[in-house]
Amino acid sequence: MQRKLYVIGIGPGDPELLTLKAVRILNEVQCIVVPKGRQEGVSMALSIISSVIDISGKEIVEAHFPMKKTVADGPAAKDELLDQKWAEAAEAVLARTSKGISTAFITLGDPSIYSTYFYIHRLLLDSDPELEIYFVPGVSSINSAACAAGISLGLGSDRIAVLPGNYPADLEQMLSEFATLVMMKPRSGFGKLLDAVEKSGAGDSLVCVENIGMKGQKITRGAKNMREDEPGYFSVLIATHDKE
Amino acid sequence: MQRKLYVIGIGPGDPELLTLKAVRILNEVQCIVVPKGRQEGVSMALSIISSVIDISGKEIVEAHFPMKKTVADGPAAKDELLDQKWAEAAEAVLARTSKGISTAFITLGDPSIYSTYFYIHRLLLDSDPELEIYFVPGVSSINSAACAAGISLGLGSDRIAVLPGNYPADLEQMLSEFATLVMMKPRSGFGKLLDAVEKSGAGDSLVCVENIGMKGQKITRGAKNMREDEPGYFSVLIATHDKE
Repeated sequence: MQRKLYVIGIGPGDPELLTLKAVRILNEVQCIVVPKGRQEGVSMALSIISSVIDISGKEIVEAHFPMKKTVADGPAAKDELLDQKWAEAAEAVLARTSKGISTAFITLGDPSIYSTYFYIHRLLLDSDPELEIYFVPGVSSINSAACAAGISLGLGSDRIAVLPGNYPADLEQMLSEFATLVMMKPRSGFGKLLDAVEKSGAGDSLVCVENIGMKGQKITRGAKNMREDEPGYFSVLIATHDKE
Repeated sequence: MQRKLYVIGIGPGDPELLTLKAVRILNEVQCIVVPKGRQEGVSMALSIISSVIDISGKEIVEAHFPMKKTVADGPAAKDELLDQKWAEAAEAVLARTSKGISTAFITLGDPSIYSTYFYIHRLLLDSDPELEIYFVPGVSSINSAACAAGISLGLGSDRIAVLPGNYPADLEQMLSEFATLVMMKPRSGFGKLLDAVEKSGAGDSLVCVENIGMKGQKITRGAKNMREDEPGYFSVLIATHDKE
């Protein structure tokens, strides 16, 4: 009996940014596992695919991945609640794949870029080393943010750094070593981040994209305009060296 | 009269990794501009979309973007041949858009990641500041390489650095500051790169993906296996810290 899991990137939010491969496999599988940041409410990932795929007749399994700590502190931060929730999510997947039920785990953006899926990858393989896991790449929110803003993240030998999490203390040094920095809006210290970006000479070129690919997508250009009208969470900031 | 250009990422090579949006717009437009690295031969981008889109009845314009210097030295390197070719490509686009012909410029991967398109972006806007340019993001070769290898580029607060071009002299320092380095196989000094990766303790985890999403895709794991069987050009290398 074949035991197979598809891990599918469904893009940043716009259902039209699903790939043909994602659509085909989602139409074929019997079970779709969808991550949810909150126990209650509708999964964003599920609502995105529902506008393209007919999910009636498929088993939908909602797996609760609490947002708690994972963004700020990374996987190294030990937390009993998280461990328990990840174990539950892994068990929910294995309960299907072990019966030969074709199963897809969907994830916003691309599976390789900060996807919750990787919190359970090792658990899955430890329990079932023969499980065949097939990844379908997707459009990442980083690429989507740059495209929404109409800017290039890099050309030629330009270096790009992706700095998630909190305010990077070494921002100025980073800006001297990299052509482009991609950052998430920090939970605190946003004013300090803008200070450092301006000091390094990238203030005018700073772009912030909020709600990428969703209703309410908003683009703000220039650090000083972000002070006046501070962007919300889940914003991607892109700093490049100011052009002459 | 509306003057509009679509800049469309078509993904890393597998035609099934086109997005629904890319397919829809490519079906709608009258003209498709395809970049070619060589004057002769068939454009890879054109052959990818041709297996999904019916291009008969559309005008196909091949624009020659010489590979010369652009990868190694970046856009700052001045070169008369490049300037001339880029000017020709921009003129080819403007000749269509100025007549109201709906036009798409296609690019491998994602438009924001080292796409040749950005060599003509400024030329287009300088000539026609009112030209409406609409970007459609695509699956990048970086995300696709990580997915092919079944690895995460980052989780939580992990930092990611993308280092194209030649052998990075500060590789060891970079590996101490970033969870993951994404590199292109250098034109020369590959052995030195492997030395530095091994010295920094990332030798076992090094992954190389050749011909991503194409026929002949090949994955090699571990720096020492790359010494024995050196990968070809157009390979993406991913170094992460070796796990205990």
